[in-house]
Amino acid sequence: MTITYLPEYEPEETIPTTPHHPLHHGHGLEPANSPFAGRIGGNQEFVLDRNDSKNLAVLERVPDAAPCMSMQEMFDLRGFGSVDLWKFAMLECVASMLNTFISAWVTTHPYAPMTAATGSAGVYATVTFFSPTFGGLTNLLLTPLLIYTFSPSSGGHINPLITFATFFARIISLPRAVLYVLGQTLGGALAGFALHAAYGERDITVGGCYIDTAQVPVGSGLVVEFFACLIVVWLCFGVALDPRQARVFGPAVGPWLVGVVVGVVTWGTAFTRVGYIGASVNPARCFGAYVASSFPGYHWIHWVGPLAAAAAHGLVYFVDPLWKDPKSK
Amino acid sequence: MTITYLPEYEPEETIPTTPHHPLHHGHGLEPANSPFAGRIGGNQEFVLDRNDSKNLAVLERVPDAAPCMSMQEMFDLRGFGSVDLWKFAMLECVASMLNTFISAWVTTHPYAPMTAATGSAGVYATVTFFSPTFGGLTNLLLTPLLIYTFSPSSGGHINPLITFATFFARIISLPRAVLYVLGQTLGGALAGFALHAAYGERDITVGGCYIDTAQVPVGSGLVVEFFACLIVVWLCFGVALDPRQARVFGPAVGPWLVGVVVGVVTWGTAFTRVGYIGASVNPARCFGAYVASSFPGYHWIHWVGPLAAAAAHGLVYFVDPLWKDPKSK
Amino acid sequence: MTITYLPEYEPEETIPTTPHHPLHHGHGLEPANSPFAGRIGGNQEFVLDRNDSKNLAVLERVPDAAPCMSMQEMFDLRGFGSVDLWKFAMLECVASMLNTFISAWVTTHPYAPMTAATGSAGVYATVTFFSPTFGGLTNLLLTPLLIYTFSPSSGGHINPLITFATFFARIISLPRAVLYVLGQTLGGALAGFALHAAYGERDITVGGCYIDTAQVPVGSGLVVEFFACLIVVWLCFGVALDPRQARVFGPAVGPWLVGVVVGVVTWGTAFTRVGYIGASVNPARCFGAYVASSFPGYHWIHWVGPLAAAAAHGLVYFVDPLWKDPKSK
Amino acid sequence: MTITYLPEYEPEETIPTTPHHPLHHGHGLEPANSPFAGRIGGNQEFVLDRNDSKNLAVLERVPDAAPCMSMQEMFDLRGFGSVDLWKFAMLECVASMLNTFISAWVTTHPYAPMTAATGSAGVYATVTFFSPTFGGLTNLLLTPLLIYTFSPSSGGHINPLITFATFFARIISLPRAVLYVLGQTLGGALAGFALHAAYGERDITVGGCYIDTAQVPVGSGLVVEFFACLIVVWLCFGVALDPRQARVFGPAVGPWLVGVVVGVVTWGTAFTRVGYIGASVNPARCFGAYVASSFPGYHWIHWVGPLAAAAAHGLVYFVDPLWKDPKSK
Repeated sequence: MTITYLPEYEPEETIPTTPHHPLHHGHGLEPANSPFAGRIGGNQEFVLDRNDSKNLAVLERVPDAAPCMSMQEMFDLRGFGSVDLWKFAMLECVASMLNTFISAWVTTHPYAPMTAATGSAGVYATVTFFSPTFGGLTNLLLTPLLIYTFSPSSGGHINPLITFATFFARIISLPRAVLYVLGQTLGGALAGFALHAAYGERDITVGGCYIDTAQVPVGSGLVVEFFACLIVVWLCFGVALDPRQARVFGPAVGPWLVGVVVGVVTWGTAFTRVGYIGASVNPARCFGAYVASSFPGYHWIHWVGPLAAAAAHGLVYFVDPLWKDPKSK
Repeated sequence: MTITYLPEYEPEETIPTTPHHPLHHGHGLEPANSPFAGRIGGNQEFVLDRNDSKNLAVLERVPDAAPCMSMQEMFDLRGFGSVDLWKFAMLECVASMLNTFISAWVTTHPYAPMTAATGSAGVYATVTFFSPTFGGLTNLLLTPLLIYTFSPSSGGHINPLITFATFFARIISLPRAVLYVLGQTLGGALAGFALHAAYGERDITVGGCYIDTAQVPVGSGLVVEFFACLIVVWLCFGVALDPRQARVFGPAVGPWLVGVVVGVVTWGTAFTRVGYIGASVNPARCFGAYVASSFPGYHWIHWVGPLAAAAAHGLVYFVDPLWKDPKSK
Repeated sequence: MTITYLPEYEPEETIPTTPHHPLHHGHGLEPANSPFAGRIGGNQEFVLDRNDSKNLAVLERVPDAAPCMSMQEMFDLRGFGSVDLWKFAMLECVASMLNTFISAWVTTHPYAPMTAATGSAGVYATVTFFSPTFGGLTNLLLTPLLIYTFSPSSGGHINPLITFATFFARIISLPRAVLYVLGQTLGGALAGFALHAAYGERDITVGGCYIDTAQVPVGSGLVVEFFACLIVVWLCFGVALDPRQARVFGPAVGPWLVGVVVGVVTWGTAFTRVGYIGASVNPARCFGAYVASSFPGYHWIHWVGPLAAAAAHGLVYFVDPLWKDPKSK
Repeated sequence: MTITYLPEYEPEETIPTTPHHPLHHGHGLEPANSPFAGRIGGNQEFVLDRNDSKNLAVLERVPDAAPCMSMQEMFDLRGFGSVDLWKFAMLECVASMLNTFISAWVTTHPYAPMTAATGSAGVYATVTFFSPTFGGLTNLLLTPLLIYTFSPSSGGHINPLITFATFFARIISLPRAVLYVLGQTLGGALAGFALHAAYGERDITVGGCYIDTAQVPVGSGLVVEFFACLIVVWLCFGVALDPRQARVFGPAVGPWLVGVVVGVVTWGTAFTRVGYIGASVNPARCFGAYVASSFPGYHWIHWVGPLAAAAAHGLVYFVDPLWKDPKSK
């Protein structure tokens, strides 16, 4: 299934499409796949061969079309001039908007002070439990479908956390990372405007984006955010980006497993401590939720947590890389 | 799918990678797999041929890269000098930390005295039932993903119980077992520090790690712990390590079945006896939970139970081995 | 997938192993499979060819390694001298012990008089409903894993009901049937001792093993037990032993369907009549439960029900056999 | 996978078996399959070729071993003399008995007057909702297993509704239809006797077999029964009998989809109108339930509804047939 080179490649001004399974298509048309090492569910199968001289021109313009970039390639700022990267960033904006709107709507409820449950069923018979349960279920079921839809073009990141993690794992370039995060954040903001128009009130809380700072120190929120992001990143890489698992899962199963991780983590962190309603694991989504209500002082943890988790994960991948480094052979 | 030899193998100072399906990867890179008989979900497929002289040098350094080690190979202490084993132990530490944090957080609640339920729905409408139910569900869903993520490198043990059991079944060497258990326990402790930082209180109980010794003798806890561990070990071997099942399940299904076992056992043992909230089946996880709260006098059962179950299981595997012994042919 | 002969077979004192997919294993080791017509989930694929003269010596020692035994072969008492049958009976003992302990523990609760529910949710909000619901779920999830684990050696019967039914369907020999049932009953008793040690009280009821004889005549209990066993036996044969279904399900799916049958029947019979908490469909399990509490006068129905169901099922299979009889051709 | 002819066929007095995948069985035995166009889950794959002269003698005796019967073949009364059809009718009797007993037992409760729910959870916290929910779940899980078990012999109809529908779709002969419906009704009656022996009371209601005629006119019951049967028949044909779907689902998935249809329809019709507890979609089952209690005046709707639905469905299949008629070519 691996695409190794494009036989009739001729240098052009657009990113070449990868003719996946060219033998199966006999009707003169080819699906438009873009080689990209950071594609979720692709397990680094949809990539070019860096050692094949035919690909050099492409890789100069799109260095993350193959794994194992050099530092110079990662930070090559000419990528900001690529029309395709801007197109993909716009798709990430749309994906983030759809994801933020539905996952926020499901978990939106009027603001109410949080107190410990007193019944014999404890928190398990309260909105504090039910709201993240159905929110987590929504994440579990919709995340894979969003990835399926967007991964052939942009790689299906949708969430700045994934873009941060692929950047620190050195499989996407800096220009792509910056443009994607900007697009995702813009998408979250657009969803926030829509959420406000749909709900009509600003005095709301959205699941995963609220801390009662009278009961929970912001530092505690940062610890949970960091660990939740670390689990999401590590398992997403394990099932949807690790080339050793490409034949174990493939692009149909990998995204479902990502949905399971995101669903379980957003649900499982949400009802343990009174005053804390769950990790965000998606800064663009809380950004959008605050556009619909108002920005709290602790919003920075939704950005610092993912960045720190992505960096920590990248460090371990540097020590134990996924690919045998061809230069060390 | 079996990897039988490495054709171009030349003795080096690192553990050689297994070129799984080498024909499919044409882009000059090889995923970094490590042959290891004790890989969860590998069903002893990712191993070397002990009778092939090309593998002798590797097997001298990594004796558990193939099944059927001699006693001398198992206890070869030169393994403590292997950089790769230390790297894998560090990955086990990370995996144990992630697993302990999330599975402890989901089931953490303030300490409260436990009494028999009196309503007509009995225990089934109380926190005593709901907490392990959602904890068990979390185990069921996240355990397979953790195994998927870590098994290509370290084998995906995550839990000292699995390392004990593979050691007593003679498919991993002593140095690997010692380093893995140390790594897993360290990971549990790190998660414990984070749990304390995130929850803020020390007066907590964590699911699977509490016995009200006024109501339940420690000996009873040890019996349940032993049986729970025995079931987990036996079924994990049956679905994820037994070479006779390799073609029945493969590395995608095996870990899900392990998740089912762990999820059902941690849930099913948790609500029957007033004052006992479930088996641990993971000593490193309770170790971490006690770092976050305080160490009780009965913590030894979380280590003795798994050790005894692993030894009992190893005895039966010695009598009825998985492989036809080539020496007895 | 069918194993038809063992080319290099030389008569030995041990049961020969079946080299399943011999071409795939190139590392000098062979997994230890034993040909046996009564293997659950095997759908009679893991058998020898009775007409091949190379197999005669094996079939003389292990007549049920192939289907369609003669009466003389079924009752050949030399099987009692087979070391392998004793080893497999020991494995059945372990499997029955693990199964009985966990499935009894989940459904154990203190003895309490049973009355009709009066709330608007009826029995569905009472322990009478919840306890078998979670017990049935445990059976549904763990039964397949127990079968997976033990079927390559002993065939994965675990339960005397299955051994009775395969005996009356004439696919296992008398010595194997007797040794298996003894092993399974001993395993149940061992689990009973552990259950007592773990629970600490003798005044308990275990799901599927209690009839309030003041409210329910023993004859009614026998009718439900008989029908429950008949359904379990018939469907287990249909999905896991019928050779016509071997390619429809195979050894990965068949055991899950067995789990569904056992789970649904133990759950579905448990809450309809006040004073009757469900069919046993496993005499060794109730035997163990009574070792942990005390033996009631009606324990005989847990043996007579399965025996009668197995005999009735065997009669229909005699009239409408699974295999075209080679002698009538 | 289609069986089109039997190479070594010699006319005999028994229905020939279909050697499915004959190449895989090398041990001298052939599983006993019977070609039959009306096999549930077979999607008309297990049939003979009507145009092959070798099959003429078989098709004269078993006209529904192939699709596209003429009227003369359908009404050939010599089928009443076939020993095999009587044997299959006996198996349908057993299947109907097992199905009726367990699905009636799960939903049996003492007769009680039905009133509208008044609590804040409405009907969703009452027996009126819970009973069909768990009855529907039982149907969903056990129906596929019953079909798996009986389909290789009798086709796995189990329920007169299916036999009516296959008759009106002209894929089974009149003698087979009559014998099957008689067998299924006898099986229902036998289960009714057992249900009475097991429950001990006659003043009971069984899910799907009760209408409070003071609140619900019988005509309303007939309308729901007709539509429920029409949905079941149409979807069962679509997933389990339509030859165009044979390669989409096959005999492992088709019966599960039938179980989903039956489970959802019996559940979804049961709690909407006060005094009506759901459609039967199986006349033999309600016949058995009334043997256990007493026959109400409206029992005719459980027969007229399925007959009318089967006829309406057959009419559309006549206009838009599944097979291109070979005679019209």
